[in-house]
Amino acid sequence: MAAPSPPRPRRLLPLSLGLFQAALLLFFTLFVTYDQPSAQAEDANSVANQLYSIYPMFQDIQVMLVVGLGLLLAFLPHYGFSALTHNFLLLNFSTQWALVLQGLLHHFHHGQVHLDLHSLLTAEFAAVTVVISVGAVLGRTSPCQLLIVAICEVPVYLASEWAIVTRLGVLDMGGTITIHVFSCYFGLGVSKALFGAARQPVNPKETPTPRSDLLSLVGTLILWVFWPSFVAILCQQGDAQHRAILNTFLAMSAGAVTTVVVSSLLEKDGKLSPSHLQNGCLAGGVAIGAVADMTMPPVAALALGSLSATACVLGFRFLTPLLARKLVLQDQCGIHNLHGLPGILGALASVVAILVAPEDTSGSRFSQALCQVAGLAVAIGGSLVAGLVAGAVLRLPCLAQPPQQLCFEDSLYFKMQDEARSLEQDGSAEEGALALKEQV
Amino acid sequence: MAAPSPPRPRRLLPLSLGLFQAALLLFFTLFVTYDQPSAQAEDANSVANQLYSIYPMFQDIQVMLVVGLGLLLAFLPHYGFSALTHNFLLLNFSTQWALVLQGLLHHFHHGQVHLDLHSLLTAEFAAVTVVISVGAVLGRTSPCQLLIVAICEVPVYLASEWAIVTRLGVLDMGGTITIHVFSCYFGLGVSKALFGAARQPVNPKETPTPRSDLLSLVGTLILWVFWPSFVAILCQQGDAQHRAILNTFLAMSAGAVTTVVVSSLLEKDGKLSPSHLQNGCLAGGVAIGAVADMTMPPVAALALGSLSATACVLGFRFLTPLLARKLVLQDQCGIHNLHGLPGILGALASVVAILVAPEDTSGSRFSQALCQVAGLAVAIGGSLVAGLVAGAVLRLPCLAQPPQQLCFEDSLYFKMQDEARSLEQDGSAEEGALALKEQV
Amino acid sequence: MAAPSPPRPRRLLPLSLGLFQAALLLFFTLFVTYDQPSAQAEDANSVANQLYSIYPMFQDIQVMLVVGLGLLLAFLPHYGFSALTHNFLLLNFSTQWALVLQGLLHHFHHGQVHLDLHSLLTAEFAAVTVVISVGAVLGRTSPCQLLIVAICEVPVYLASEWAIVTRLGVLDMGGTITIHVFSCYFGLGVSKALFGAARQPVNPKETPTPRSDLLSLVGTLILWVFWPSFVAILCQQGDAQHRAILNTFLAMSAGAVTTVVVSSLLEKDGKLSPSHLQNGCLAGGVAIGAVADMTMPPVAALALGSLSATACVLGFRFLTPLLARKLVLQDQCGIHNLHGLPGILGALASVVAILVAPEDTSGSRFSQALCQVAGLAVAIGGSLVAGLVAGAVLRLPCLAQPPQQLCFEDSLYFKMQDEARSLEQDGSAEEGALALKEQV
Repeated sequence: MAAPSPPRPRRLLPLSLGLFQAALLLFFTLFVTYDQPSAQAEDANSVANQLYSIYPMFQDIQVMLVVGLGLLLAFLPHYGFSALTHNFLLLNFSTQWALVLQGLLHHFHHGQVHLDLHSLLTAEFAAVTVVISVGAVLGRTSPCQLLIVAICEVPVYLASEWAIVTRLGVLDMGGTITIHVFSCYFGLGVSKALFGAARQPVNPKETPTPRSDLLSLVGTLILWVFWPSFVAILCQQGDAQHRAILNTFLAMSAGAVTTVVVSSLLEKDGKLSPSHLQNGCLAGGVAIGAVADMTMPPVAALALGSLSATACVLGFRFLTPLLARKLVLQDQCGIHNLHGLPGILGALASVVAILVAPEDTSGSRFSQALCQVAGLAVAIGGSLVAGLVAGAVLRLPCLAQPPQQLCFEDSLYFKMQDEARSLEQDGSAEEGALALKEQV
Repeated sequence: MAAPSPPRPRRLLPLSLGLFQAALLLFFTLFVTYDQPSAQAEDANSVANQLYSIYPMFQDIQVMLVVGLGLLLAFLPHYGFSALTHNFLLLNFSTQWALVLQGLLHHFHHGQVHLDLHSLLTAEFAAVTVVISVGAVLGRTSPCQLLIVAICEVPVYLASEWAIVTRLGVLDMGGTITIHVFSCYFGLGVSKALFGAARQPVNPKETPTPRSDLLSLVGTLILWVFWPSFVAILCQQGDAQHRAILNTFLAMSAGAVTTVVVSSLLEKDGKLSPSHLQNGCLAGGVAIGAVADMTMPPVAALALGSLSATACVLGFRFLTPLLARKLVLQDQCGIHNLHGLPGILGALASVVAILVAPEDTSGSRFSQALCQVAGLAVAIGGSLVAGLVAGAVLRLPCLAQPPQQLCFEDSLYFKMQDEARSLEQDGSAEEGALALKEQV
Repeated sequence: MAAPSPPRPRRLLPLSLGLFQAALLLFFTLFVTYDQPSAQAEDANSVANQLYSIYPMFQDIQVMLVVGLGLLLAFLPHYGFSALTHNFLLLNFSTQWALVLQGLLHHFHHGQVHLDLHSLLTAEFAAVTVVISVGAVLGRTSPCQLLIVAICEVPVYLASEWAIVTRLGVLDMGGTITIHVFSCYFGLGVSKALFGAARQPVNPKETPTPRSDLLSLVGTLILWVFWPSFVAILCQQGDAQHRAILNTFLAMSAGAVTTVVVSSLLEKDGKLSPSHLQNGCLAGGVAIGAVADMTMPPVAALALGSLSATACVLGFRFLTPLLARKLVLQDQCGIHNLHGLPGILGALASVVAILVAPEDTSGSRFSQALCQVAGLAVAIGGSLVAGLVAGAVLRLPCLAQPPQQLCFEDSLYFKMQDEARSLEQDGSAEEGALALKEQV
């Protein structure tokens, strides 16, 4: 039992990743260039100004995804290093993969793809869907399987985003429908197809410790702080962006307080559940994305934040166990509660906001509202089907799914002692262990 | 002893918080709206520019308060999750409460309150005073009691800030007097009134472990890095803001080095005390606020930083034990050393800076210096009295103050195992536990 | 064994630091002033704009150095608090020391040194070299010795930077040669001269635990996110800066994926080594600095990132053990793999980029390429010699080098329990301790 023997050949991950890097180099060599330098001083000035307006927000989003989300996923006490690393690896791989696909699909002008900060940003958004989706199967999948999810999900996301935003004209600046709802149902599809009807036994390593819960909460707080940047970065500069920032702040602030209220009311002894806090506080940010830049009264943002936090906490308490019992659906991180329910609420809020908007927007309010509903349907339907297909692919035996008893364990993928063993070797604890042995 | 039974009815917190959220929604529905969209392109451009100048600093401050301060307070080994969560909850609640009060007090134009990033910021500053004050009673109070502190402190802060800045015309861009001194003596008042003359016994859970000290130090470093944004955000753009950033940097850098010097000299074996480091490094930032944007030579910032770090460390070493012995005054986080002493030093520095300023400012230097002193007196006196009153309210039996032996313990408020128990269940510790059971 | 007695007099550190602070105050009093306030409204506006373009990036770099690098160095399980604190202290001390030297050397106009954000930034860069260099001797040196390194390294860096950039005209906006290569070989020189031919025995406290590895990885991720700001902050605003950000992002993203590939291929069981991840992911950022703002195709950034990550991981696997065996060279953090090898690669890349650049730059491409090579040689040679000298100084007996068995231990410098002892006293562990006592 000392070192768990690796379940299957370990060469697949580095070889396929290496091959992908080579292909990426080839693609960039052939097709990708930077934007032409702006010839005139005035242009240069405007490039600089554009940079200063988008770059700080871009960095905020990077911190959210790389540090915040990574820490949030580190709530499994023996799987924190894996959660951080897999999240980071997936983000990088998916961003590169999205750059390639975006290049092929959208940006073909004169045979050359022009790269700028904005294209990095949209590629990063594609990567976000992947790291959200794999939350449903956290700890029970190998890195190879995670890569397959990324390979499948990025093109489907790009297609879905094109259908929803470009074709249907859905208003969704903060990615509520295109990112959160999409990635949630994709992830649930993957989980369902991967685990089928086999109920996964509860593993003692799934229980967070106070320390891992604390780290995860730090991740939540980092996400909470920078969420306004995530929602507002693509909004029109000026009033719309300002409004998006304020609305997101209000929704997340109301959501945070409401989470405490609802979580506390659900328990007889009034104690809060750490997982409710870690997720409920962020639900407002998920929901507000679709309406953040619309002209609506601030109270709507507060109400939406409270409502979605309520939905998220109730989902954890009632819906997740129900889905696990009735549909044998595994959702390790509760992505349906954080991204699915608040996302749907946000989409419905956008319908209401469009219907009650003042008349000065054109008369096509009803058709726009219908589009929002259609977009939601496309996001849910498309992602579920694609997720089920991707999940079926994950069952390929060569993908090295970890056996049940080795799940949730960093030492399966990293050269590190497992936590308990390392504790034993700690300083004076050695003596304690020695004493114990002598007793026995 | 397995699961400590809750000391008192647990419904008060969620019900009162829920009621407050409902009232907030009502208030926003009736009174609050966004600023009118700027009609002309030129205005839109200026809105955008204003946004880019204030938003990154606003985010810096959010990181400080939510992540940095939360981690700094997590130095109690079994109370880290509570410290982070209570800090976060209080920030949100107090900001909302301040938005309501500010709306009622200041911004009433034509029956409507106009919300923008600047009003969020000033509301956030009101919330800062609350989270500083409760540091004095950290770990010995229930969330209900903390809410009462917030309810009492925010209106008193707004009144005090109005008296000091608007009426007296005190110069204090970084909040040295209005925020730090005020919140310190408010917190001490609360502590004194709450615990009265009953000396609180030392609890073994009050001793930090190396791990909790490490987390707390990370919090200090986050606060240290972003402190210039906190001081400079409200300064006049251009030279004054630039100077405020530089002065704050210099003061905090000198303070950090001086902390090491003084803490090391105080001990026979030259070892540094973690709590000196965690607090002393920030003292310079507290003190510099009142003078950061004034035209003074850079050496003054260095000297003030060194001086306030010295005062902070000496306070921890000599004054806190003295106050505890003579006045039976409980100050869990040492807020008097981090906010009180450096705050007073900063206020005095502003008097000196005004008196020695070059002549070209109008002749009313003496009256301005008097105003600074009067502002300091108002901040100390007002906050002490109000804090004593608030502390008396906290003794209401319905507020569920935790009994002595359950203090400093996350598991009283959160559904989590206490640390020791969870360690037992860790990996190979399971075997240990098993062995123990068999022995029994 | 309870409290390890201090090895040597403990007064040297605070006294010398205190003396330095006094000298700093004197220097600032005599010589340093702020830039003249800009008299005209137009100037004020431009000051403000300059501030908003540089300040967010400056803060990013502060977070990298204070929080990110500090955490990265905290991989030693019993030495995390020391790593964070010493890094922080050295940053502050070295920045102040660099401000003094810079003031004396460069900025002497009319007897006055004019301080602005830009001078803080260049002083901070000098401090970076110090904190990189001491990575080679992490945990085996006293704070006094670290101060001596700083005192020696900062003037040598300023001289070397002047020779390389000002005299030779080397292009190196991101500090690949002037900062990374320089500080690496300086640190190796210090290590060699300090430890001589005495092979340091392996200490069990050198082995990271899962928890310390996790914290260190968080540090890596923070550095990874903000690295583009470090590289781009001094670039010409507009296109060049935009390109530098994109190139750095691409290099670091490719480097992250390549690290996983190479680390995984090196081991029979395919497991990743935490130290490879913690360092390899950053190698791309080190290498790209010299070429980030040049006009080259994006694929070059990807290739350079992959190449340097490969070099870094191979260095950890093969070169570090080899150097330890053949040259008896101690490199605790592997700075040669993270800063040395990728730095040299980056310098060579700049030679290639200059040679293949389109003709429109002047015809002096060959001489510029030669300059780059000469700059690299100056950086390596100068730093090695100076490092050896500095390391010899560190052997002075008064500098209190910790004895072998007390290395890597927070409790030698801080008033804290060692980890094992504190675990014993945790919650229910008290009972265990009690039981043990009763047995005895």
